[in-house]
Amino acid sequence: MVTSGNLFAHLPESPQAEETFETLAGGAAGVRVERIVSTGQTSAEDDWYDQAESEWVAVLRGAARLQIEGENAERSLGPGDWLLLPAHCRHRVTWTSQDEPTVWLAVHYGGAER
Amino acid sequence: MVTSGNLFAHLPESPQAEETFETLAGGAAGVRVERIVSTGQTSAEDDWYDQAESEWVAVLRGAARLQIEGENAERSLGPGDWLLLPAHCRHRVTWTSQDEPTVWLAVHYGGAER
Repeated sequence: MVTSGNLFAHLPESPQAEETFETLAGGAAGVRVERIVSTGQTSAEDDWYDQAESEWVAVLRGAARLQIEGENAERSLGPGDWLLLPAHCRHRVTWTSQDEPTVWLAVHYGGAER
Repeated sequence: MVTSGNLFAHLPESPQAEETFETLAGGAAGVRVERIVSTGQTSAEDDWYDQAESEWVAVLRGAARLQIEGENAERSLGPGDWLLLPAHCRHRVTWTSQDEPTVWLAVHYGGAER
């Protein structure tokens, strides 16, 4: 059966208390395709993501800034910008837009990138 | 090392002879994240994709129509529309826009969807 949807559907009209996470595909197959919607949330100070899986992530709408451990400058992300974060590449989200929802697409998958 | 790019960069300004395919992540890990750019190409008559892997695919820019075997009507896809095509779900692309490049994002991954 073919499932379907739209990445820009059901976006909140105002800032929410929490980010939303929806699994669109995978989950049981060593890969997970996920939509994340931020409305101004950021990682807490000194709170780093340190993930056992590789993550390919793109901003499709909105804007965000990401700090990657060991890099001097934060990275600014806008529509279409993508990053491939190897497993255990520590990173944190330092800013997301409060003016409009920021729609991320993330693909999490197992093992280290070659 | 973090690699990065933009999904809407380096788009052709005019119709091209062939679609372009670029692997953005994975490849060796049972998953492949791929950007596809179409400029009016379609599947040949009676030429169906029949893939051993599941494919999650979205149109990020442009427009396309997809025929899925067993469905009465073609599916029209615009920005944000996504489909999860299980392995061996036969499908063909019946139309892509000639007015602007159509940017697809595909995630291919092994095994059947549960």
